[in-house]
Amino acid sequence: MSSNDKILVLHGPNLNLLGLREPQHYGNATLDSINQTLIELGKNHQVEVTTFQSNREYELIERIHAAYVEGIAYIVINPAAFTHTSVALRDALAGVKIPFVEVHLSNVHAREAFRHRSYFSDLATGVICGLGAQGYEFALTFAIKKLKTQ
Amino acid sequence: MSSNDKILVLHGPNLNLLGLREPQHYGNATLDSINQTLIELGKNHQVEVTTFQSNREYELIERIHAAYVEGIAYIVINPAAFTHTSVALRDALAGVKIPFVEVHLSNVHAREAFRHRSYFSDLATGVICGLGAQGYEFALTFAIKKLKTQ
Amino acid sequence: MSSNDKILVLHGPNLNLLGLREPQHYGNATLDSINQTLIELGKNHQVEVTTFQSNREYELIERIHAAYVEGIAYIVINPAAFTHTSVALRDALAGVKIPFVEVHLSNVHAREAFRHRSYFSDLATGVICGLGAQGYEFALTFAIKKLKTQ
Amino acid sequence: MSSNDKILVLHGPNLNLLGLREPQHYGNATLDSINQTLIELGKNHQVEVTTFQSNREYELIERIHAAYVEGIAYIVINPAAFTHTSVALRDALAGVKIPFVEVHLSNVHAREAFRHRSYFSDLATGVICGLGAQGYEFALTFAIKKLKTQ
Amino acid sequence: MSSNDKILVLHGPNLNLLGLREPQHYGNATLDSINQTLIELGKNHQVEVTTFQSNREYELIERIHAAYVEGIAYIVINPAAFTHTSVALRDALAGVKIPFVEVHLSNVHAREAFRHRSYFSDLATGVICGLGAQGYEFALTFAIKKLKTQ
Amino acid sequence: MSSNDKILVLHGPNLNLLGLREPQHYGNATLDSINQTLIELGKNHQVEVTTFQSNREYELIERIHAAYVEGIAYIVINPAAFTHTSVALRDALAGVKIPFVEVHLSNVHAREAFRHRSYFSDLATGVICGLGAQGYEFALTFAIKKLKTQ
Amino acid sequence: MSSNDKILVLHGPNLNLLGLREPQHYGNATLDSINQTLIELGKNHQVEVTTFQSNREYELIERIHAAYVEGIAYIVINPAAFTHTSVALRDALAGVKIPFVEVHLSNVHAREAFRHRSYFSDLATGVICGLGAQGYEFALTFAIKKLKTQ
Amino acid sequence: MSSNDKILVLHGPNLNLLGLREPQHYGNATLDSINQTLIELGKNHQVEVTTFQSNREYELIERIHAAYVEGIAYIVINPAAFTHTSVALRDALAGVKIPFVEVHLSNVHAREAFRHRSYFSDLATGVICGLGAQGYEFALTFAIKKLKTQ
Amino acid sequence: MSSNDKILVLHGPNLNLLGLREPQHYGNATLDSINQTLIELGKNHQVEVTTFQSNREYELIERIHAAYVEGIAYIVINPAAFTHTSVALRDALAGVKIPFVEVHLSNVHAREAFRHRSYFSDLATGVICGLGAQGYEFALTFAIKKLKTQ
Amino acid sequence: MSSNDKILVLHGPNLNLLGLREPQHYGNATLDSINQTLIELGKNHQVEVTTFQSNREYELIERIHAAYVEGIAYIVINPAAFTHTSVALRDALAGVKIPFVEVHLSNVHAREAFRHRSYFSDLATGVICGLGAQGYEFALTFAIKKLKTQ
Amino acid sequence: MSSNDKILVLHGPNLNLLGLREPQHYGNATLDSINQTLIELGKNHQVEVTTFQSNREYELIERIHAAYVEGIAYIVINPAAFTHTSVALRDALAGVKIPFVEVHLSNVHAREAFRHRSYFSDLATGVICGLGAQGYEFALTFAIKKLKTQ
Amino acid sequence: MSSNDKILVLHGPNLNLLGLREPQHYGNATLDSINQTLIELGKNHQVEVTTFQSNREYELIERIHAAYVEGIAYIVINPAAFTHTSVALRDALAGVKIPFVEVHLSNVHAREAFRHRSYFSDLATGVICGLGAQGYEFALTFAIKKLKTQ
Repeated sequence: MSSNDKILVLHGPNLNLLGLREPQHYGNATLDSINQTLIELGKNHQVEVTTFQSNREYELIERIHAAYVEGIAYIVINPAAFTHTSVALRDALAGVKIPFVEVHLSNVHAREAFRHRSYFSDLATGVICGLGAQGYEFALTFAIKKLKTQ
Repeated sequence: MSSNDKILVLHGPNLNLLGLREPQHYGNATLDSINQTLIELGKNHQVEVTTFQSNREYELIERIHAAYVEGIAYIVINPAAFTHTSVALRDALAGVKIPFVEVHLSNVHAREAFRHRSYFSDLATGVICGLGAQGYEFALTFAIKKLKTQ
Repeated sequence: MSSNDKILVLHGPNLNLLGLREPQHYGNATLDSINQTLIELGKNHQVEVTTFQSNREYELIERIHAAYVEGIAYIVINPAAFTHTSVALRDALAGVKIPFVEVHLSNVHAREAFRHRSYFSDLATGVICGLGAQGYEFALTFAIKKLKTQ
Repeated sequence: MSSNDKILVLHGPNLNLLGLREPQHYGNATLDSINQTLIELGKNHQVEVTTFQSNREYELIERIHAAYVEGIAYIVINPAAFTHTSVALRDALAGVKIPFVEVHLSNVHAREAFRHRSYFSDLATGVICGLGAQGYEFALTFAIKKLKTQ
Repeated sequence: MSSNDKILVLHGPNLNLLGLREPQHYGNATLDSINQTLIELGKNHQVEVTTFQSNREYELIERIHAAYVEGIAYIVINPAAFTHTSVALRDALAGVKIPFVEVHLSNVHAREAFRHRSYFSDLATGVICGLGAQGYEFALTFAIKKLKTQ
Repeated sequence: MSSNDKILVLHGPNLNLLGLREPQHYGNATLDSINQTLIELGKNHQVEVTTFQSNREYELIERIHAAYVEGIAYIVINPAAFTHTSVALRDALAGVKIPFVEVHLSNVHAREAFRHRSYFSDLATGVICGLGAQGYEFALTFAIKKLKTQ
Repeated sequence: MSSNDKILVLHGPNLNLLGLREPQHYGNATLDSINQTLIELGKNHQVEVTTFQSNREYELIERIHAAYVEGIAYIVINPAAFTHTSVALRDALAGVKIPFVEVHLSNVHAREAFRHRSYFSDLATGVICGLGAQGYEFALTFAIKKLKTQ
Repeated sequence: MSSNDKILVLHGPNLNLLGLREPQHYGNATLDSINQTLIELGKNHQVEVTTFQSNREYELIERIHAAYVEGIAYIVINPAAFTHTSVALRDALAGVKIPFVEVHLSNVHAREAFRHRSYFSDLATGVICGLGAQGYEFALTFAIKKLKTQ
Repeated sequence: MSSNDKILVLHGPNLNLLGLREPQHYGNATLDSINQTLIELGKNHQVEVTTFQSNREYELIERIHAAYVEGIAYIVINPAAFTHTSVALRDALAGVKIPFVEVHLSNVHAREAFRHRSYFSDLATGVICGLGAQGYEFALTFAIKKLKTQ
Repeated sequence: MSSNDKILVLHGPNLNLLGLREPQHYGNATLDSINQTLIELGKNHQVEVTTFQSNREYELIERIHAAYVEGIAYIVINPAAFTHTSVALRDALAGVKIPFVEVHLSNVHAREAFRHRSYFSDLATGVICGLGAQGYEFALTFAIKKLKTQ
Repeated sequence: MSSNDKILVLHGPNLNLLGLREPQHYGNATLDSINQTLIELGKNHQVEVTTFQSNREYELIERIHAAYVEGIAYIVINPAAFTHTSVALRDALAGVKIPFVEVHLSNVHAREAFRHRSYFSDLATGVICGLGAQGYEFALTFAIKKLKTQ
Repeated sequence: MSSNDKILVLHGPNLNLLGLREPQHYGNATLDSINQTLIELGKNHQVEVTTFQSNREYELIERIHAAYVEGIAYIVINPAAFTHTSVALRDALAGVKIPFVEVHLSNVHAREAFRHRSYFSDLATGVICGLGAQGYEFALTFAIKKLKTQ
């Protein structure tokens, strides 16, 4: 496994509530089960997948700084509420220059108007929303393929 | 006292400065004296009132997550500056589905334009602003009555 | 009872329908029962509370002009639909310079966009919305305390 | 003739000038002749048509309140200038929950920009504009059919 | 029957689905039954009514061009989705200078914001919306009267 | 004195408070003294000046309707708060087609943003604001000259 | 294979140019190779995948109408330029009520501002953009799973 | 004549064309005849009126600077096209702190939208527009009275 | 004549009506006579000029696709109504990367506001509007010169 | 050569830098060589072409005033930066009522957003941009033809 | 050294990456070297300079609260990403009423539109941007001078 | 002293009033004393500093043109009111491609909304505002350092 074969999956605020919170928006899977699936998926492709959730903007920022040092090659991030408000998180991603895919469990386009603006989408490689937990799997699959074909 | 008889009062950033900061906007009462009054008011109605102030968005978010576990029945919240910027705090409240009243010490409509937008008001049961520390008492009185008459 | 101890409660258009109209927004109390409660509350504090409802903008304006002559010390006003359209009513309040609290039965922030603009809020001491008929009581309590502590 | 068979036709401000005022916009028919035609049309279908014009917002509001008591089953309303400014009239219609059709003599879409916004159209069953006095007849025909086929 | 006595009824995209598509917006009548009613109505007044539906913008444009050659005296048009997007259709109507009435089955004012803008309304004689299939009959009746009284 | 030599001066809502209300905006003259000056000025030029103040939109509207019957040749109007909200008053002036000058005592451009929009200015011959009671005199002088030189 | 096991893949205008046109936005795969991959993917899961590209809005609309008759259970659509302009295509999808996933090869959020508005996203189950041809595969995988688990 | 009794009348760009240019907007009087009338009017009240026209923004600016030195007590200014574009001229007036009345020959509110914004009105004592050359006389009369009654 | 010496002239919807439609906007020349002039002009410079008009968006799109295959070196296009609505046509031009000049017969800046936005101008080499049929000749002359001097 | 056969070519600020300044926007020709070409072109058609460049708004304004006196029949103007800021120059052209064509060397639609607004385009006969120095020749050719065919 | 001679330098999120992150925006100096320079500069003027960087909004807020207690006399702050999103940080500065200068390493005006809005600039004494690490030195120099000349 | 060692300091309109005009915004220093300080500062670093103030946009433009010829290496400019209105001055700076720092004496962010837009900031190396006359010194110091370290 080369140093390029590390992928970080980041979950933003309130995602620890998954399974509890607004199932009509976010589905029934818990964050743990999602993370297990992703780590498994990584293993199947000889990729080390690390996951991290925080309600703290600074922890996400500093996790990204650390990713730079660790040689993380791709990030999958669901910034959750920070999507619409955190320039600091955006700047962290822009600063370390690690490519990333943005994921949303729910279809943000079908929700409140303020959810239509993202501070991440224009910097991301791509965006997936509304496909529930599968969205993470697709994003990870995409990232793995990118790493394997570079 | 049934498990329904718990109310949480949340104070957002900088409210620890009360009494010091911009008295023309916020009045002279300290946060401690306000909290004492509210706890007393709760006691008079056999309601357990817990208060919490933080300058940290994540602490407020996680306090709300905990409220769900503790069976808090109503929240009175003065999100202070987070009123205008924190989708994450909004999502926490929406996630735990505990009804809440939004309070502001000062009249936000008479201040800067950016204070006219709230990420909380459309989710709240109601909003009180400009009535100083009494605004908290009114909100608490309302919440107590709601609990007592359900 | 000094001349300072008079408070006027004003109700705007369609509020005579209370109990009939859109109970999901406005609740089940009738205007009469609300007024009785407020007058009673005033009496308990030696304050003369006068109430007035009109569907006529000019009657509300002229009631405010008269309040100036009568020495009304505080106004509690629910401008209802005029909240969003009546500069004339605003000018009447600004003209007589009697302090006032703005009350809305329903949470205007959770309704149509045009209800988010008020011609009164920036002039008001404070605003209460979404707390139903109790909103009036809180406003009156606030006004009474102001008068008693001047 | 059942209690359901009553329709109210409301005309807003300045429509008493019809025939005089800006014939390029409003045509040559007087309000009396329009009303006669409508009452006649009602009679032909065993529907009691009542008409009412006022330049006074409150009279229109109170006429709508009375309609609720009288058991009026449908309203045809040309709010005229109040179309663009009267939330109070809108609230009256929303309060009594009587279905209504909105009519304009002139084509408001071909006039000043401020005439493009209506406080009524989203609540109305439908809207007719630009077809002159015939617009009322169409609206009434529609309302009669609705009543007859319920 | 003079050459002036021809009226064209145009139906825009997706209206072939009538009866199937979103009955809460468009009702249960099929397009064929609507057309039959309109042709019948024309016959009753010695007016030749032609109807045409297309999902193809260019067919509607070219049908309007042909109408000019055929001496069509009035058009009744429900541009459906093209209402909000087709300047080309607008230009066709403006080019042939045949007067027209715009019809919508549903009340566009009560639907998505983008349906509030029409590229046709300011050119039309008038607009009818929300009255279902009857809207076409009213528009046709209006057009027939115009032709008969010129 | 010919039938052309009649001028109507209209004052909108709250102007009965003149001398009392916000002197920093409106000055110290009472409405009566202003009216006396204007009537005097008219007499000096053999023009009959009638003045009318109302807080009631409909009274102003109907006063304008009556002006048409009386043969009023020019109107000087300070619509006060109605400047920014009354399409009905605008329509009354447009309906009777009597030319008018719009007057404001205070400089509306130096006040709240909502006072920058007038429903009257584009229909008026001209507008005077910020010159206090003299503004009326200038408007009347202008109207008189217009009448005398036609 | 039940009648539920049919999925339609739609490609909008100019996508026939794939491989030729702006590879920095759209990559190097041709449409044929993409379609082959998708059909293959369907076969692997016993799902009949049909693909269709057109530069003609009406053909796409009518293909959707036909899908309703054929019993297509899911649609994967890349509306390409029509994303931003075609209400008619939106209405076709809304009319047949077949669920769909919206796909874009390029990251529309990183391109011109007019590409940030979609007439489809709020109706879609979800949206994938910026992941190139893999985006189609993810959308198809999602749709297949939906069908298999209903 | 005291040093306070000097008034400066400033005319902006293109006003040298008066009498030639767009008489429907600006009337037939020439600038010279207007200036003569104003100087005469000043003399009648023992006020020295100086007039100055320029198409050069800097000349108007420097004329205002000079006015400060000369002890000009009031300015009447028609900034013409500079009304809508010259912050520099605004800053000159703000800098010397000489009170001024803004005059426009035509009714700017009835012309292009860009003429509705003035960089001067909020600083001016008042504004007169649409009254032709008389507007200057009214402004001067106002200024003279101000000087005489200070 | 080299393969570089081919120019395509495209005309958008309704331009087949030229000479008939709104001569105040578009002049009296027919499309045929314009095309003849352009072909002639091409011949004079040894350039093969092909012209094509369509009311069908897809025909224009596919004509542009074909132009790529044919080796067309420059395009002169009057997108007519599609100027303001067709991203698909824009994408076709962007896809084939053939340089083009945008032409409008009428001055779009002097017409409806929605005509001020073009989906083509920022991609075009240049734009000519308001010069009638001569605009095409200038555009063609420019394109020829470009080809001859490369 | 009749008095109608005079054309004025005006160049706005910074155009004296041509050849030096931002060649990617403005090309390599110097202003002198452009002027020579235009004068020559005029001579070939017996039209006297005068050219004038200034960085001074007032010189351009006064040159236009003078053009009126000299009997200039057509103006070709590149207002350069004044395009977006000078109402005074617009008013000069409107005042003398000499028809004009607006020319820009660069394609303003492909540059900063503030360059998309012109104070001249709606008054101009037509506009040419992005065609470099040839744009002037086309404008002049158009003007000459207009003069010759009047 | 008096208690007035303390200055606090605050650095917002991601500034710990300095030297690593986007050197085209932020230059090559590390935060440590910048801080050393500033402390040195302070020493040269007998001013105690304290520096503090955090990615945590609350730490910055609480550092400001502490500054109040410590008697810090001036603050130099580069809020980095919080510039555009943190009302809480603004409120902290407003609350303690310590004057401050806002510094940005990069020229925010030349970057994304959302960087053009600052929640700090209107409260700051002044703002420096785009001058790299020197910007801090200038801000500190300014603050020192202010303290020395009070 | 090499030809690179020349810096031009430009002051825009009304800055000749310094010391007189609005000291709360601009401070008490005169322009002469500021210029002396700057020239002195230049001398100390072997840099020739030239200063120039003008109320004339064209003089500033032409001074910049001349700077190009003279080999000025850096410009410090306070465009004053032209900041918000002069595209021509911006174009002059863009044309000569001399790097510049933008300076404002007052904090424009704390003043009228129209002062928040600058036509210069996105082209400048950096911007300093609100630091009074010291702002010039900082800008000059920055420019000198740039020259010395190239």
